[in-house]
Amino acid sequence: MRTICFYSDYGYQDDFAGTCRAVIKRLAPAVEVIDVTHGIAPQNVLGGAFVLRNTMHYMPDGAVHLAVVDPGVGGSRRAVALRSAGDRLFVGPDNGLLVPAAEADGGITEGRELTAQELWLAPTSATFHGRDIFAAVAARLAAGLPLERTGVEIDVGTLTHVGVPEPVVVRGSLRAAAVLVDQFGNVALNLDGRQLAQAELGEQIEVVCGGEGFLATVAISFQAVRSSDIVVLVDSYDQVAVCVNKGSAVEVLTLKVGDMVTLRRRPPS
Amino acid sequence: MRTICFYSDYGYQDDFAGTCRAVIKRLAPAVEVIDVTHGIAPQNVLGGAFVLRNTMHYMPDGAVHLAVVDPGVGGSRRAVALRSAGDRLFVGPDNGLLVPAAEADGGITEGRELTAQELWLAPTSATFHGRDIFAAVAARLAAGLPLERTGVEIDVGTLTHVGVPEPVVVRGSLRAAAVLVDQFGNVALNLDGRQLAQAELGEQIEVVCGGEGFLATVAISFQAVRSSDIVVLVDSYDQVAVCVNKGSAVEVLTLKVGDMVTLRRRPPS
Amino acid sequence: MRTICFYSDYGYQDDFAGTCRAVIKRLAPAVEVIDVTHGIAPQNVLGGAFVLRNTMHYMPDGAVHLAVVDPGVGGSRRAVALRSAGDRLFVGPDNGLLVPAAEADGGITEGRELTAQELWLAPTSATFHGRDIFAAVAARLAAGLPLERTGVEIDVGTLTHVGVPEPVVVRGSLRAAAVLVDQFGNVALNLDGRQLAQAELGEQIEVVCGGEGFLATVAISFQAVRSSDIVVLVDSYDQVAVCVNKGSAVEVLTLKVGDMVTLRRRPPS
Repeated sequence: MRTICFYSDYGYQDDFAGTCRAVIKRLAPAVEVIDVTHGIAPQNVLGGAFVLRNTMHYMPDGAVHLAVVDPGVGGSRRAVALRSAGDRLFVGPDNGLLVPAAEADGGITEGRELTAQELWLAPTSATFHGRDIFAAVAARLAAGLPLERTGVEIDVGTLTHVGVPEPVVVRGSLRAAAVLVDQFGNVALNLDGRQLAQAELGEQIEVVCGGEGFLATVAISFQAVRSSDIVVLVDSYDQVAVCVNKGSAVEVLTLKVGDMVTLRRRPPS
Repeated sequence: MRTICFYSDYGYQDDFAGTCRAVIKRLAPAVEVIDVTHGIAPQNVLGGAFVLRNTMHYMPDGAVHLAVVDPGVGGSRRAVALRSAGDRLFVGPDNGLLVPAAEADGGITEGRELTAQELWLAPTSATFHGRDIFAAVAARLAAGLPLERTGVEIDVGTLTHVGVPEPVVVRGSLRAAAVLVDQFGNVALNLDGRQLAQAELGEQIEVVCGGEGFLATVAISFQAVRSSDIVVLVDSYDQVAVCVNKGSAVEVLTLKVGDMVTLRRRPPS
Repeated sequence: MRTICFYSDYGYQDDFAGTCRAVIKRLAPAVEVIDVTHGIAPQNVLGGAFVLRNTMHYMPDGAVHLAVVDPGVGGSRRAVALRSAGDRLFVGPDNGLLVPAAEADGGITEGRELTAQELWLAPTSATFHGRDIFAAVAARLAAGLPLERTGVEIDVGTLTHVGVPEPVVVRGSLRAAAVLVDQFGNVALNLDGRQLAQAELGEQIEVVCGGEGFLATVAISFQAVRSSDIVVLVDSYDQVAVCVNKGSAVEVLTLKVGDMVTLRRRPPS
C-alpha cells in the first residue's frame, strides 16, 4: 500500500480536491492521502513543478504523487504515470509538472500514457480529469495495481519539460528565473545554495529585474536586515529566494513567475 | 461504520471546521472524515445545496453527509437528519440545504428532527450548532447509532426546500437560475445537459441577464473559443455553465447566485 | 498513541502545512493528525494563543498540540514542549503561544527546551522549524517518546507569556483587549460571559475604542438586532465578542488585535 500525496491548483473554495479524495476513498478505502497543497497558483505549471520537486523527499517513501495543474485538460496533452529510480510514482498531465521531481528522485525509469480507460471513472468528463482519470488511477496504483497496467509504455524522452532556463553562474554574477512565489511574496529562483556560494557575490549585492536595479543584502535570515529591506537568502528548500523583510518582494520588485533575475556584486560607489 | 463527508461555509481562516473534526474524533475515534469543502460562500444555502447534490454520488456509499450552511442558527429553524432511498444519511439545518441531494439519491425515506439532546455537546452554544449538534450527531450516526434515536420523526413533506425556480425549456430558448459560482467565476445554472440539447439552440447563442444580451458559443470546452469570449458548456457535474475563457463570467455578465438567465438562439443579423 | 492537533499561520497557498503532515507520517505512520486551522493571521501570536486555548478541550484527550506561529524563527527564542496537568502536550516556540492553553488545562507541570537535536530533521533549516523541529518532535511524542527525551528541563516560570492585559471589571464598566478576529470580522475580547454578567451593564451599552463611542446592544445572538447594528454577545467559546449584524465589527469600529475596548452602561440621554 502506498500513500498518495496530492498537489493541485484546485483551491479551497470549491469541492474539486475533496471530491477527488472521495473518489480515492471509494476505489481504495485503506489508502491514506496527504493533501500537500491545493493552493498552487491556478494553471501555474512551473510553480507546481517546483513545489512538487522541493517537497518530494519529505513525503513517505514509495508515495504516489498525484499532481494536477492542467490548463490543457480536454485537449491533446497526454495523461501519464511515471516511476522514478527511487520507486516513487507520479500521476498527472504530461505538461512538465511531474518531470523535475521524478528526475530529482534518481531519474525516470518508466513512463506510461494513461490509456487503460477501464481504470477511469465512467462517464469521463471533458474538464475534470483530476477526478475522473488522475485520482482514479492514483488510487488503484496506491492499492497495488502494477504501473504497466495503466497504459501503453512511452519513451520518456518524449515527455514535456517545463521551459525554465538553466541559471547562468559566473564569478560575481548570477542570472536565473523566478519559479515560485509564496504567500508572503517571497520569490524563489531556479538556483540553489551551492550556486550562490560559487558566484562569490559578497554580502552587498544588486538585484536586477525588469531593467531596474535594487540594493540587497545576502544573509542567512530576515533578521539580518531592517524592515522593508531586500534580502537574498537560501530558503528551507535550498532555493535562492529574493525577499523583503516584513514586505513582499513580488510587489516591491514587480516580479512574476518566469521573469529573469540577475544578482550581481554591487559596484563600488 | 459510515464515512462522514463534511461540507460547510466555515472557511479556512478560523478553527470552526477543525474543531468539528475534533468533536467527531472524540465521539467516534474510528470514523473517517472527508472534508469535501469548507469554502461554500458564507450563508449561501442554495449554492451549498447544489454542491452537495452534485458531489453526492462520488462520495462513499452509505456516507453521512454533514452539511452546515446555517444563517438561521439559534433561531427557529429545525435541526434534522434524513435518510435517502440509497441509504445515505444527511445531517444539517432544515433550510433546504440537504433536500436536493437526498431527493437525487432516490428520495427521502425518513426524516428526524434532532431533539435527542443527550446526543449533543453540553453546554450547547447558541451560535455554533455545527460543533455542538450537527458534528456530534453525525459522529454517532457514523459509528452506528440508529437514525430513529436522533429525535422525533417528521413529515418529510414539511421540509424546507431551496426556492429555485424550475427551468423553462422551450425550443430555441431556455430560462434558468444561476445556482453556483466557482472560484474561476464560472456560473452554473439549474439546467442539465439533456435540457440544453432539447432546446436546440445551435452553436451561436445569446445569453440574456439583467436586461443585457451577450453573444456566446455553445461548446464542449473552453478551447473552442478565444480568450475573453463567453462559452456555454456542460460542466463536469452535468450542469450548464456560463463561462468566460481565461476570464470570469460572474464579472463579465455581473451575475450572482439566484439571478435568472436566458439562453436563446441568436437572431439572424 | 496520541493524536496530533495542528495549528499554524502557514495558510493554504503553500506546501508548508502539508509538508509538516508528511514529516509526521514518515516518522510516526500510525499517528493521526487533525488540522485545526492553518489560517491564523500571519505572525499573530496573541490570536493563535487564544485559538489554541479556546479549542483545546474539544480536542481528543492526551493530544499533542502542535502550534506554530513563529515570527522569531531562526532567532534566539527557545523551542519548547510542555505538559499540562490534564496530560496534554504542547509543542512550539516559546513566544507565549502555548501558555494560555496549557494553563487552562490545569497548569503546566513540566517544560522542556527542545535541545535533543537527534530528534530533528537533518539538515535543519534556519527558517522552517515547523517542519524540521516542531513536527518531527511532535510526531515522536505522539508515537510514545517520553517528554523528558526532548531536551533539558526548564523552569516553567521562565516561559514567555503573551502580553495581554487582564480585563478591568467594575460595576457598570468593563475594559479588555481585543484578542481574536474571525473571518466575519467579529472581535473577541479577553473577557468571558461571567465577567460580562458581573459588570451589570444592562442591555443598551456603549462600546468605546480609539476615542470613539458606538451604541450597541447586549444580546444572546445576532437575531436580536437589525442589520448593521452592533451587538455584544458571548460567543461559542465563552468569549465576549463585539459584532455587527451582517457586517464586520473590525471595519465598523476600526479595531485590531491588541486594541483596548471599553464596554459601559449607556448614559441616560
